[in-house]
Amino acid sequence: MQKEKLLYEGKAKKLYKTDEPRVLWVEYKDDATAFNGEKKEVITGKGQLNNEISSLLFQKLEDSGINSHFLKKLSSTEQLVQETEIIPLEVVVRNIVAGSLQKRTGLKEGTVLDQAIVEFYYKDDELGDPLINNDHIRILKAAQPQEVEQLKKQALAVNETLKEHFDSCGLLLVDFKLEFGRTADKQVLLADEISPDTCRLWDKATKEKFDKDVFRFGLGSLEEGYTEILKRLGGAVHG
Amino acid sequence: MQKEKLLYEGKAKKLYKTDEPRVLWVEYKDDATAFNGEKKEVITGKGQLNNEISSLLFQKLEDSGINSHFLKKLSSTEQLVQETEIIPLEVVVRNIVAGSLQKRTGLKEGTVLDQAIVEFYYKDDELGDPLINNDHIRILKAAQPQEVEQLKKQALAVNETLKEHFDSCGLLLVDFKLEFGRTADKQVLLADEISPDTCRLWDKATKEKFDKDVFRFGLGSLEEGYTEILKRLGGAVHG
Ligand SMILES: Nc1ncnc2c1ncn2[C@@H]1O[C@H](COP(=O)(O)OP(=O)(O)OP(=O)(O)O)[C@@H](O)[C@H]1O
Ligand SMILES: Nc1ncnc2c1ncn2[C@@H]1O[C@H](COP(=O)(O)OP(=O)(O)OP(=O)(O)O)[C@@H](O)[C@H]1O
Ligand SMILES: [Mg+2]
Ligand SMILES: [Mg+2]
Repeated sequence: MQKEKLLYEGKAKKLYKTDEPRVLWVEYKDDATAFNGEKKEVITGKGQLNNEISSLLFQKLEDSGINSHFLKKLSSTEQLVQETEIIPLEVVVRNIVAGSLQKRTGLKEGTVLDQAIVEFYYKDDELGDPLINNDHIRILKAAQPQEVEQLKKQALAVNETLKEHFDSCGLLLVDFKLEFGRTADKQVLLADEISPDTCRLWDKATKEKFDKDVFRFGLGSLEEGYTEILKRLGGAVHG
Repeated sequence: MQKEKLLYEGKAKKLYKTDEPRVLWVEYKDDATAFNGEKKEVITGKGQLNNEISSLLFQKLEDSGINSHFLKKLSSTEQLVQETEIIPLEVVVRNIVAGSLQKRTGLKEGTVLDQAIVEFYYKDDELGDPLINNDHIRILKAAQPQEVEQLKKQALAVNETLKEHFDSCGLLLVDFKLEFGRTADKQVLLADEISPDTCRLWDKATKEKFDKDVFRFGLGSLEEGYTEILKRLGGAVHG
């Protein structure tokens, strides 16, 4: 497999074409950003940690019968994935109240929801990724109604597998953000990444935060938090 | 009918108990407020205009078979209404892009939607009345799922009647906010008010704004705008 021209450089990853049609080469970067890019830092080792964790989680999902764009891990910072047409929605699943859900509802951080909830945000940096409802999705033509149903169903299935898996590793899966794309045959497929950048993960016993909130709110070392997550998932910790 | 103790004073209305159980006496005030109370002014004649317009519109809905809390107009600033337990949701229906929908979606003001959309906002001044989705409504226990379906259906029915009525009066019904309550036998009932404070109304030909946006953005005289709406609805314009 040959890495070819750069297709897209985001805040967290670079995507390259390959000599194989519809297969992309992903490189995880060391850049940490928060608050829609307002806070920025380079954190050596972050790309590696996210690539390792994301690869392990996509593999775990595949073992549970949930498909994703993940094809294989290439190196400590690189993956091969299936190319998709990204659906411009951030699909958020929440098990415990934190972050914007706390602000929106006034419910206390840490409140355990009796059933997971799903939120859709419109993926548009200029608009600040606003919360939207199904009617907004329709007028924005972001996704078809049947796709929205699929997104919700698949996101909840991902939650069931990951919540249980993290629990068995001593971690609470508080909430997480997924992105989905359309395959060449117009099927909805889980894409992007699943990492401490996109999940809130707390220690089950102490409720210590190990995820990107450590960076967002300057609570300690991001690298230590992410390393702790990788360790608990049974991954190989480098350097 | 006897007016008794003050039950609630809001920004736009006072609600009094009466000697009749479950019947309230509403007094429309002359206070104008916008941006969650940040902008305030007393505008003589506003209470009267809103009471007249709201009474006419509730009557129009009743004529089309849509029930509401409205019982009768008592005076130029007063109504009798059925008491309800207000559901803490603002139900917004939109036919044309304006206001927060423009900000949220990036769609251009004035864009005509091919189908009306419905939004739910959590009625909580401290939280700033945030947009919420059905899952948020569930965890906030703001309404039952069957009630949410009712709210959406009834709001769209109100829209059909009012849109047509305003159109026949040379006005575009851009969007509006409704509140619903529960009756003693737990039925969902349209409540609160329908007025230029809660509707966006534009001249059909010139797109001139006659509603509260005139006050919000200092575009001219609120009283003139509201008077124009009352005139076009065929109402009696006082002093
Ligand atoms: N399988 C895929 N096919 C095509 N694009 C993908 C795939 N997986 C992820 N992407 C896209 O790759 C881009 C780069 O990811 P990254 O996380 O760096 O972006 P970002 O900075 O979060 O910005 P944004 O998501 O707003 O573009 C994202 O736009 C993401 O949606
Ligand atoms: N039929 C009804 N039964 C009980 N309460 C009602 C009824 N109709 C309207 N209300 C309530 O009367 C209150 C007074 O109305 P007003 O428009 O002045 O309130 P407001 O300032 O907009 O504030 P808020 O709606 O946030 O309380 C509102 O809380 C409204 O929900
Ligand atoms: Mg990203
Ligand atoms: Mg009000």
